[in-house]
Amino acid sequence: MKLVIANKNHSSWSLRPWLLLTEFGIPFEEVLIPFGQTFDDPDWKRAIAAFTPAGKVPALIDGEIRVWESLAILDHVADTRPDLAIWPRDPAAKAMARSISAEMHAGFQALRSACPMNLAWVHPPRDRGPKVAADVARIAAIWNEARARFGAGGPFLFGAFSAADAMFAPVTARFTGYGIRPDDVSGAYCEAVQATKGYVSWRMAAFAEPWIIAEDEADEPVITDHRSFLSRSRVSP
Amino acid sequence: MKLVIANKNHSSWSLRPWLLLTEFGIPFEEVLIPFGQTFDDPDWKRAIAAFTPAGKVPALIDGEIRVWESLAILDHVADTRPDLAIWPRDPAAKAMARSISAEMHAGFQALRSACPMNLAWVHPPRDRGPKVAADVARIAAIWNEARARFGAGGPFLFGAFSAADAMFAPVTARFTGYGIRPDDVSGAYCEAVQATKGYVSWRMAAFAEPWIIAEDEADEPVITDHRSFLSRSRVSP
Repeated sequence: MKLVIANKNHSSWSLRPWLLLTEFGIPFEEVLIPFGQTFDDPDWKRAIAAFTPAGKVPALIDGEIRVWESLAILDHVADTRPDLAIWPRDPAAKAMARSISAEMHAGFQALRSACPMNLAWVHPPRDRGPKVAADVARIAAIWNEARARFGAGGPFLFGAFSAADAMFAPVTARFTGYGIRPDDVSGAYCEAVQATKGYVSWRMAAFAEPWIIAEDEADEPVITDHRSFLSRSRVSP
Repeated sequence: MKLVIANKNHSSWSLRPWLLLTEFGIPFEEVLIPFGQTFDDPDWKRAIAAFTPAGKVPALIDGEIRVWESLAILDHVADTRPDLAIWPRDPAAKAMARSISAEMHAGFQALRSACPMNLAWVHPPRDRGPKVAADVARIAAIWNEARARFGAGGPFLFGAFSAADAMFAPVTARFTGYGIRPDDVSGAYCEAVQATKGYVSWRMAAFAEPWIIAEDEADEPVITDHRSFLSRSRVSP
């Protein structure tokens, strides 16, 4: 099984299936095709077209079967590995997990546009307007409801790590990267996701990436610049 | 089981689960809450909040379980009715059906923005810019690939009617409503979806709706205005 992804620093949608497969211990070969100077670089488009007709990451090659779109890949893994609780087993929990994952897949455009995932940088909190605030409030409501109703068995939305956590992992990265912490439940949840072995491993690989994409380099103050920190570390004795 | 929807004339996302349930003969109670003067009318938001925490249609109430987002509702129905081929049974077909449904769920923003679903009106074809053209080309490629690889058993994307057709039904309405017919395979597919008993029934109910939402009334020429046709029909002897 091959998972085709792009830059770990930038590709929030690639993170989802990568984290799911990693956390569930499902073996896969990683194929990383770095974006070019922009997200619509024609060379990148050509390279990715060899793996998926949609021309986007992530894509999964499972024998003869090709799957694309992060949510469809999670569902394909759930279909082919019924021995694993990729989705929560409880029907009400599963229904909510599916609903919020689909809501995440299609929504929260204001947050995604204002706060692109860039793991290298941490920005201080600031007001990002009412649409971003509405997205943040809805995400916090989702997390609080899931944790309160179904979170008893562990630190994740439905207790144990599931596909819903994979879908929201990039949002935890945005919250951390832009100083967004709507409440303690949300803050603790972000920390739980980012403490998984999979996320830590992804983040360390991201910090080591040399690629810069100008349109995702936010023009605002930075508290932490992991890339320059790592560059300094590399040249220090 | 209750399915909460909005105006049949305008609510493309409501059409998806409604059509799936209807075509598979699954009984449900329809709860139609018409939009107000705008899509973010506060009274409508309050009414819908009684059924779903996301504050959007469609929403499914299945006993104690609440599901929202069209794609999650289709998956919930598939989970709870394994006796029905809601998704295609063949694994490769199912993987493609899931991929293109997720692609539809999150994508094609240019087409959706330029060509809002409004079943009352048919507009003549015209150039709508390169982003809409790219969306149309990708949708036509999806339909042609699915029909060629998996469509042998019937007129739908995977032969028999499936969740993937429910996901794309609103796009067929947009194509018809804005004079978009990229090729004969796509045209025949749109006709097959719109010839289903479920779609015909939805469309007739839409034509009879009195509600107008200004922001979805396209300011361009109209070939057919079903609402004024029906109004005339009603007053004629």
